Amino acid sequence: MDAATQLPTVGMIGAGQLARMTHQAAIALGQSLKVLAGDPAESAAVVTPATAYGDYRNVEDLRGFAKGCTVVTFDHEHVPQEALRVLVAEGVEVQPRPEALLYAQDKQAMRTRLTELGLPQPRWAPVDSISDVEAFGLPCVLKAATGGYDGKGVWMIDTPADAEAVLASGIRLIVEERMALQRELAIQIARSPRGETAVYPVVETVQTGGICTEVIAPAPRLNEATAEQAGHIVETVAAELGVCGMLAVELFQTSKGLFVNELAMRAHNSGHWTIEGARTSQFEQHLRAVLDYPLGSTETAAPYTVMANVLGGPPGGPRLDERLQHLLAEDPGAHVHLYGKAVRPGRKIGHVTVCGDDPDVLRRRALRAAKWLQEGE
Amino acid sequence: MDAATQLPTVGMIGAGQLARMTHQAAIALGQSLKVLAGDPAESAAVVTPATAYGDYRNVEDLRGFAKGCTVVTFDHEHVPQEALRVLVAEGVEVQPRPEALLYAQDKQAMRTRLTELGLPQPRWAPVDSISDVEAFGLPCVLKAATGGYDGKGVWMIDTPADAEAVLASGIRLIVEERMALQRELAIQIARSPRGETAVYPVVETVQTGGICTEVIAPAPRLNEATAEQAGHIVETVAAELGVCGMLAVELFQTSKGLFVNELAMRAHNSGHWTIEGARTSQFEQHLRAVLDYPLGSTETAAPYTVMANVLGGPPGGPRLDERLQHLLAEDPGAHVHLYGKAVRPGRKIGHVTVCGDDPDVLRRRALRAAKWLQEGE
Repeated sequence: MDAATQLPTVGMIGAGQLARMTHQAAIALGQSLKVLAGDPAESAAVVTPATAYGDYRNVEDLRGFAKGCTVVTFDHEHVPQEALRVLVAEGVEVQPRPEALLYAQDKQAMRTRLTELGLPQPRWAPVDSISDVEAFGLPCVLKAATGGYDGKGVWMIDTPADAEAVLASGIRLIVEERMALQRELAIQIARSPRGETAVYPVVETVQTGGICTEVIAPAPRLNEATAEQAGHIVETVAAELGVCGMLAVELFQTSKGLFVNELAMRAHNSGHWTIEGARTSQFEQHLRAVLDYPLGSTETAAPYTVMANVLGGPPGGPRLDERLQHLLAEDPGAHVHLYGKAVRPGRKIGHVTVCGDDPDVLRRRALRAAKWLQEGE
Repeated sequence: MDAATQLPTVGMIGAGQLARMTHQAAIALGQSLKVLAGDPAESAAVVTPATAYGDYRNVEDLRGFAKGCTVVTFDHEHVPQEALRVLVAEGVEVQPRPEALLYAQDKQAMRTRLTELGLPQPRWAPVDSISDVEAFGLPCVLKAATGGYDGKGVWMIDTPADAEAVLASGIRLIVEERMALQRELAIQIARSPRGETAVYPVVETVQTGGICTEVIAPAPRLNEATAEQAGHIVETVAAELGVCGMLAVELFQTSKGLFVNELAMRAHNSGHWTIEGARTSQFEQHLRAVLDYPLGSTETAAPYTVMANVLGGPPGGPRLDERLQHLLAEDPGAHVHLYGKAVRPGRKIGHVTVCGDDPDVLRRRALRAAKWLQEGE
């Protein structure tokens, strides 16, 4: 609690673009987000004065960071369980709690728990050796149990040799069936410690090379039964896993219904559209949830909203500032979000959002805008 | 220009709530606003890491601050002309230029210039002595030529004794007729150095005790001729005075048409509604204009948007955090903006915005929300 403003202090471990956009939301709520960064060049570190430096794996650093925070939360899921459990034992308010966060950190734990809950998911198995993979059947997908993101830690396996190569890394793996997808969807919910929930509309996500490049909100041509199934899944996961804050559930839509792909217990790329497209952005909602504030309205602010990610383009070409001006001139209604990162090929350096009536028109606008920012053409 | 991000650095002199909200907009554009603050507790100083401290009246402090800034702009109009002219002479890019800013700093200069331009304004005269006031005729309004804001520097004069009391202060004054108002309106325009302009819809402003307490956007029941007159006035002022950045023109609506009340060459309280209610917020638009970026769309994002200011309430009562939670529970669709200021009676400490279809319903919601934040009931 800040003495002068009588308002709480939220600490966020991690200082990437999620923390950066959370800082924007925190400002509106009268706060200044406190972030734990590893490097002064990180996205959030360059825009918030309450930046502490340290190692998110080190209990001493975390303990120092937590001092004075009303609640500590995350912009990534890489903080070790042991460290979080020490903080909680010492009385630090950590949200989501480590017992819940575990399921966003460990895919094997997540799959096991979802099996117990009877929620639909791809057929899967733990993997100890090549024989487990062969017994499961090829083709399949191998996933690192921990530490994967943005397509990293996911391998498409067609032959035993493919599997051997991944197994050679020595990391803990699970194997999943490769499903025939109609498309990918995602749904977000906020849940507060008192158990209040607020569900956002189901969105369609488009992946390119394992990275989410586009989100259409709400998902076009979604039938009511599927929307209800998605709502049931996200409500069940949030309540049964004891989630606090934002939860995103990535879903496969198939001819046999929905299947859970991944979970994230934080603001998520599939929810960036909410900054302009919903009454309450996922970033403000996460703050409200972890503070046990009443949650905000998840109503849409436009019939459709489309978000496209901006990836770093190839070296050379016009400077980012020139590319930005080109985009602003071409599409005066586009909402640009840049993350203040140095441009590297394939790195997420920002996103663009457009709101309107026709999802197909919006997709064209958003993709064109992202391409301009990427390549300047 | 920041070497790592290839993006510009904007310096803002002043660190109040306007700079605070500009920082939120700067983050989206990939920047971190640099502010010149007088005190570490100021609204923007507590949320932006690029805070410099100094006296905005001191050329040395301004010179140091301007170093490394692509452009220097303002969150208030109190920087002395002499200081700004020194900076410009030394090659600093200052926007708006001091020659334009003068008309927002000096009401006598503004009235003289608007008379030359033939724009409608209240009958007025410069004042040197009580005889000037008596010759002008009572009742009237006395205004400080410089330094007034939020009703400060404005005196309603009914008797010669009232006038004598104001004249005794020794400050430079002008006298204006007291007009019979139907209501007050405001209109904003952005103008860039290359002369591109973007005009926002006319809004209705409601004043209480000289302070703007409520803004309804667009102004309900405005006939087309009046909207066109407002557009003509703001376009003329922007072009003829050479404005760069945001310009707000406050207007009196009377049975004889519109009359110019005040000018502001910066983001303005009458434009806070644009954060949620327009495609481009006034804060982003100001940044785009002073950087000579292409301007953003001024289309509305909802049929109506209403903003109510939150003033500090009387001492005692629930803490701000409790009052905030009460409001968030009562109106989950309200957008809250708190300025991170210590609460003092009558001080602007935040605002609340609501978007929807019916301006009367929105006004009730916004005023109730502001009252809850003020008093906790």
